[in-house]
Amino acid sequence: MAQQLAIGVDLGGTTVKTGLIDRDGKIIAQAKLPTLAEENPKAVIGQIVKTIQEVIPHAGGKPIAGIGIGAPGLIQNPGGIVKSPPNMKNWDIVPLANEISNVFQMRVEVDNDANVAAVAEAKFGAGKDYPNFLFIIWGTGVGGGIIMNGQIYRGLTGGAGEVGHISINYDGLLCNCGTNGCVEAYVGQRYLSKRTIEKLKSNPSSKILELVGGDVEKISPMYISKAAEAGDVLANEILVEAGTLLGVMIGGVMNTLDYRVTVIGGGVSAVGDFVYKAIHQSVQKNVQKPLRDGIKIVRAQLGNDAGIFGAAGMVL
Amino acid sequence: MAQQLAIGVDLGGTTVKTGLIDRDGKIIAQAKLPTLAEENPKAVIGQIVKTIQEVIPHAGGKPIAGIGIGAPGLIQNPGGIVKSPPNMKNWDIVPLANEISNVFQMRVEVDNDANVAAVAEAKFGAGKDYPNFLFIIWGTGVGGGIIMNGQIYRGLTGGAGEVGHISINYDGLLCNCGTNGCVEAYVGQRYLSKRTIEKLKSNPSSKILELVGGDVEKISPMYISKAAEAGDVLANEILVEAGTLLGVMIGGVMNTLDYRVTVIGGGVSAVGDFVYKAIHQSVQKNVQKPLRDGIKIVRAQLGNDAGIFGAAGMVL
Repeated sequence: MAQQLAIGVDLGGTTVKTGLIDRDGKIIAQAKLPTLAEENPKAVIGQIVKTIQEVIPHAGGKPIAGIGIGAPGLIQNPGGIVKSPPNMKNWDIVPLANEISNVFQMRVEVDNDANVAAVAEAKFGAGKDYPNFLFIIWGTGVGGGIIMNGQIYRGLTGGAGEVGHISINYDGLLCNCGTNGCVEAYVGQRYLSKRTIEKLKSNPSSKILELVGGDVEKISPMYISKAAEAGDVLANEILVEAGTLLGVMIGGVMNTLDYRVTVIGGGVSAVGDFVYKAIHQSVQKNVQKPLRDGIKIVRAQLGNDAGIFGAAGMVL
Repeated sequence: MAQQLAIGVDLGGTTVKTGLIDRDGKIIAQAKLPTLAEENPKAVIGQIVKTIQEVIPHAGGKPIAGIGIGAPGLIQNPGGIVKSPPNMKNWDIVPLANEISNVFQMRVEVDNDANVAAVAEAKFGAGKDYPNFLFIIWGTGVGGGIIMNGQIYRGLTGGAGEVGHISINYDGLLCNCGTNGCVEAYVGQRYLSKRTIEKLKSNPSSKILELVGGDVEKISPMYISKAAEAGDVLANEILVEAGTLLGVMIGGVMNTLDYRVTVIGGGVSAVGDFVYKAIHQSVQKNVQKPLRDGIKIVRAQLGNDAGIFGAAGMVL
């Protein structure tokens, strides 16, 4: 069993990336094909199957534990059914796990991007030492996944860990989802950038403007972070506030689950350490007293290959 | 195994109540003694042991699955260690599960009041049909417990489900715990009553005052509920707002766990159905869209014996 391998499939809107990996997270073989998302589910499944067929011979006789697939859209589990993934044509409801296990006679697990990324960090990344943590994808929106006893916790219908739509202010900003005060409506990348553009009108000398060459369309949390680290007060304020608000939500989840550790991935997670410090302080303030020791806010470690690693990790 | 019995111990500050119950929740024998909380742990343990010895002979040869104990204070699990329970003298840290299992050579589980009440509802009460739900004790404060796959989910240190200190407003009322906007600081019984007294100053004709005979010290959520049901507008507003705010917190927990069902117990849970309706509407507004179907807000069913039932339920 120690030599067992697993196949991880990262199903993206443009490319299917598939890897054969071992328990230590070493990629033994990789295959890549266009997704053919503009055709239909049958075409997409065909591409997935081809990439898997390409990596299997590299196993060299070692047992393969199964196939994990990270997919966009809403995934119904148990069952591994993929519902209406964005950017995939003619795709309504597809029992993807069944389709693939019928071909390969192996255990197949399918989950959404956020859960797969959480598993990747749990098995091979920043969460390796923590059997229980909250994983957050901090990007355009705010998503996440819950690792419980080393496994993904999916909830009743696969929606667990979607923490972006937790309200941190019952009377707050109206989110697209119809709720007031969702944390995503405060700290999601789009909101952050928009709010920064607004504030720059009265702060035209901010380093943020300098860094984007005056083009406000280019503003992103990364530029704001760089400006803050170069001493820009406004930039610092914006990201410390964002971290503080994210920490309010994280604190609520820590209270609920009696957890201590949060791993943060996604595009915005590359911001400077001062933001992590702000998150940490806020979480500490927002949990019940017995939980205030041992709080950890950790940066995700896996980049582009997180999809393959996490997908494989689901069956390891 | 179908005939298996269990012993449940409800350790209160004044009385130890112990019951021998069967799988259907029928009490076969009961014993009661003063806790002797004003003496020391040895005295208290002695009383617990005596009540257990009193009920055991009534088993009539049927196997006893174990002993469950509901205790006040912070309980460390695994281990069943009871730390500094309020109102118990000279009690610092006591490995209560060990102390009792040494005497009876049985499996012993110890948990806090809120978790035990949650188990009681799960096994014998309003949660019987739901393997996964959030239990809330709505009383002076707001506490709770999480039932996951029919069992209590304790988290890393036994603190899971303590949802009263989840913030529903990052900029809100300062709670005793040091956090801004804890839901407890909005809807806990004491806060509700205090706020009502304040509002009555400009509403002297409210039915609430009539019901308490003009004595504002007597004001409680039950009187407010009665006034609302008799058509008092202010009373209705106060409790609908409280339900709505409680629903914001519940929505956040439903989002985190992908749950649908909440069972509400505690002193305030006896308020009228209109409050449950307000909670329901608020939860529905505060969860992500795929979770909006099937939301259930249910009144707890077990009263005074919940402690015994839940304690026994932990080992059944």
